[in-house]
Amino acid sequence: MNLALLFDGDFISADRVLLRGRRLEHLNGILKASTGDRIPVGRVNGAMGFGEVLKLSDQEAELQVTLAHSPPPALPLTLILAMPRPKMFRRVLQTCASLGVKDIWLINSYKVEKSFWQTPWLSEDNLRENLTLGLEQAKDTVMPQVHIRKLFKPFVEDELPTLLADKRALVAHPGMTTPCPTHLDGPAALCIGPEGGFTDYEVAKLGEAGCQGVHLGRRILRVETAVPVLVSRLFDACQ
Amino acid sequence: MNLALLFDGDFISADRVLLRGRRLEHLNGILKASTGDRIPVGRVNGAMGFGEVLKLSDQEAELQVTLAHSPPPALPLTLILAMPRPKMFRRVLQTCASLGVKDIWLINSYKVEKSFWQTPWLSEDNLRENLTLGLEQAKDTVMPQVHIRKLFKPFVEDELPTLLADKRALVAHPGMTTPCPTHLDGPAALCIGPEGGFTDYEVAKLGEAGCQGVHLGRRILRVETAVPVLVSRLFDACQ
Repeated sequence: MNLALLFDGDFISADRVLLRGRRLEHLNGILKASTGDRIPVGRVNGAMGFGEVLKLSDQEAELQVTLAHSPPPALPLTLILAMPRPKMFRRVLQTCASLGVKDIWLINSYKVEKSFWQTPWLSEDNLRENLTLGLEQAKDTVMPQVHIRKLFKPFVEDELPTLLADKRALVAHPGMTTPCPTHLDGPAALCIGPEGGFTDYEVAKLGEAGCQGVHLGRRILRVETAVPVLVSRLFDACQ
Repeated sequence: MNLALLFDGDFISADRVLLRGRRLEHLNGILKASTGDRIPVGRVNGAMGFGEVLKLSDQEAELQVTLAHSPPPALPLTLILAMPRPKMFRRVLQTCASLGVKDIWLINSYKVEKSFWQTPWLSEDNLRENLTLGLEQAKDTVMPQVHIRKLFKPFVEDELPTLLADKRALVAHPGMTTPCPTHLDGPAALCIGPEGGFTDYEVAKLGEAGCQGVHLGRRILRVETAVPVLVSRLFDACQ
């Protein structure tokens, strides 16, 4: 936690918050904070700054917050992911949030096992918790939006074309002839398949919706590795 | 497992192997292979091809192997990592192996907790097992070399300058003024710090040894995310 993300419910006045639970444990256990210390904070979807510790106990911490600067820029990316295996999914969410991805669509695909959709990590609270961990890691405040689409065909036929309007649209898929582009300077949409990849039918449907098939070299990467590799290739993290 | 990596001990003749354990379970449980099926295999540090299943039981599988093509090119990268927290370490190893990193130096740093060096994941068998998983994911055969250096100063003063000879040498560190370069066309060495970063003293020592400090933008990434982001930035995966 390189920043404590503050939610509306944490505020007891315009510039004071009470922290409990995980963030309090971090203050006490990891940061070993004391009264008077300043710790980095940010208000969800708002500005970043510091919180000065006014009171601290095992039950709660009271901080006076000063929020003065903007979060880092978001990536102009719509990420469309075949729903990952649950044990990877949490990490993928955290990774996306830490990289600055703000628009995530979880879609079905032939090789997505039905059971993946049953994972408790898809609950609203758990999505928010894992995205929060990613934002706190990266020092960002802007909560990504997650959209869940459990039917492939209606999504690709009815929603995807609109979603892709005015974007460079790509589907990363082994065996394509075009290398994945680098250093885009405008908005993009990127589809990433499940373990084992999209089927030929699915790649064709994504193509009909406007996605260009691109490859990423000979190596087959797990989704949790492919996401940072592709994002780093498409956009310049240093800008 | 997109390829079964074969070791010398698996061979019962020049072109036949017996598989047991994890690889056999994968054949039976995931691939649901039958006699006559061909599965992708590669010989450690050697060629890749396929293995035709001759016999298959719950105890073992016998395959006739045909090895005809080369593994994907290695990255010309020496990766120097402050020893990661054990729960991340396994994944970092697998990620490095799947990305094509072949030369990994695990070094000490002020913020590396002493207990990290006690992890069983550093045993020779466990290193090989996790690197194997990464190679099998990416369809590669060339086993990375892992070097362990538990003392920072002797490593940086006595070994690092030689290691960096003829390489573009970088240390990724937040707050540097130079952005991390992209698309290198020659060998490189990259140092990545622990959670919380290298200390100023350590960055200065790495600088004396020849490493240029570079940043990766405002976001602070976990090592398991920073590795693929940096590797993807430094080298073109599609080449």
